[in-house]
Amino acid sequence: MKEHTLTKTTVLTVQVQFGDCDPAGIVFFPNFARWMDAASHHYFRECGVPSWSQIDEPAGFVGAPLVETRIHFFKPATYPDVLQVHTDVEIWRAKVFIQRHRVVRGATLVCEGHETRAFCTRDAKGHVKAVPVPEMIRALCN
Amino acid sequence: MKEHTLTKTTVLTVQVQFGDCDPAGIVFFPNFARWMDAASHHYFRECGVPSWSQIDEPAGFVGAPLVETRIHFFKPATYPDVLQVHTDVEIWRAKVFIQRHRVVRGATLVCEGHETRAFCTRDAKGHVKAVPVPEMIRALCN
Amino acid sequence: MKEHTLTKTTVLTVQVQFGDCDPAGIVFFPNFARWMDAASHHYFRECGVPSWSQIDEPAGFVGAPLVETRIHFFKPATYPDVLQVHTDVEIWRAKVFIQRHRVVRGATLVCEGHETRAFCTRDAKGHVKAVPVPEMIRALCN
Amino acid sequence: MKEHTLTKTTVLTVQVQFGDCDPAGIVFFPNFARWMDAASHHYFRECGVPSWSQIDEPAGFVGAPLVETRIHFFKPATYPDVLQVHTDVEIWRAKVFIQRHRVVRGATLVCEGHETRAFCTRDAKGHVKAVPVPEMIRALCN
Repeated sequence: MKEHTLTKTTVLTVQVQFGDCDPAGIVFFPNFARWMDAASHHYFRECGVPSWSQIDEPAGFVGAPLVETRIHFFKPATYPDVLQVHTDVEIWRAKVFIQRHRVVRGATLVCEGHETRAFCTRDAKGHVKAVPVPEMIRALCN
Repeated sequence: MKEHTLTKTTVLTVQVQFGDCDPAGIVFFPNFARWMDAASHHYFRECGVPSWSQIDEPAGFVGAPLVETRIHFFKPATYPDVLQVHTDVEIWRAKVFIQRHRVVRGATLVCEGHETRAFCTRDAKGHVKAVPVPEMIRALCN
Repeated sequence: MKEHTLTKTTVLTVQVQFGDCDPAGIVFFPNFARWMDAASHHYFRECGVPSWSQIDEPAGFVGAPLVETRIHFFKPATYPDVLQVHTDVEIWRAKVFIQRHRVVRGATLVCEGHETRAFCTRDAKGHVKAVPVPEMIRALCN
Repeated sequence: MKEHTLTKTTVLTVQVQFGDCDPAGIVFFPNFARWMDAASHHYFRECGVPSWSQIDEPAGFVGAPLVETRIHFFKPATYPDVLQVHTDVEIWRAKVFIQRHRVVRGATLVCEGHETRAFCTRDAKGHVKAVPVPEMIRALCN
């Protein structure tokens, strides 16, 4: 599954638990969204990006909320599977970026997600708005 | 937000709880996927479709697992918001259908999801495969 | 199930969803803890208590975190059950109180929880400590 | 934290995720119940007990549902803490057993749970009832 990518790739290991599965005996779908969110945070930490609250440039930095998410499901997963979430940044755009998460069980692709996120700040009035991708973050991930 | 649609529309009310929100004070995104799954089940029940386990034609019917999901996020939600999930079927294709969920708070569109699902059966060996949309289900929803 | 109680009682309705259930087909137990937490917040709101962040006496008020929780399970619940959580305050002690949650399905007691919680403040250094039950809150609930 | 115990002890490592925390910035309490359930399953697997569905003596074996749970909370946990859940069986009684889970962060005890569980079977009519602790399971755990 190695392929050309412009950014670093990180891997988060997930152990599927009994309680992650639904009455059909397979992982309840929203758990994949939960694990991809965890993988997104894990990605920036592994790349050396400080936690959001410790970034003071730009001012009022609040993180990278989701703008859009898309997930394709290929194979079901179940307890007690061990999954790996391979994460990279597919595209840096002016004010958003697309983070890709490939969830695999061994050589099997279970599902693949693409999350469009925007780095945001909160002004004095509490309004949240997207800002250009900070150069520091981009440099750490490339 | 009324618009032309070919199928019935149902509404599921969701009360956002304190524990549905993350340290940023807004709904943790995967909860929207959870509420859309609940809205999908609610839709078929409201249309009069029997529960999956009571459908015996086609044989081995197991339900409508997700093939793909896409969600656009427009506005954050938080505790103690009351949200409505408006659900319909946007398209019936040969072996899949697209269910649409519009999550609103009053007149504000919070997020919109499109779920591609396939009705599936499980054969004697346990293999799951997609089957054509059962005419009975389609008739009840239109 | 009416009985003598010294405080107000509130009722929170919960619709069990498919995704709340586990591979055994019954509600995954931690969801009851989630619903009891929601019922605890619902209780104070219904009694007219302001949201935690709007209480300025005592200073640095942060809410009522759990000190201990105990739940007895009597009957399983499953999708698409509709449950009611009946909540009251069983005891006000000097620095803690015990909130009781009785989860019923019609006339059937599904489970009963007792949560010991402490009202807390956070000082300038970020330390959280328990404070006496504010008289204003106690008066609104009795 | 080593102490005398009559059964094996297992350790499950949990990485607290951003989305496991609530608006107060600490782990939302029901997640501890979720992790303890995972630790309960992990315990029997590590002790060599077959998965519930592969146990055919007694007939109709369905697992070990909760009868009662009690958790004491000592210190909050937050993202990105790494926690260990130390699990053993405190007492084997005739038809129930008490599983203990001590959740620690390094040398700090975060919370401690005691779960009373009963091994159960389901008869031909679907009724679930508690059975004596199977000698095979008890022997594997001691």
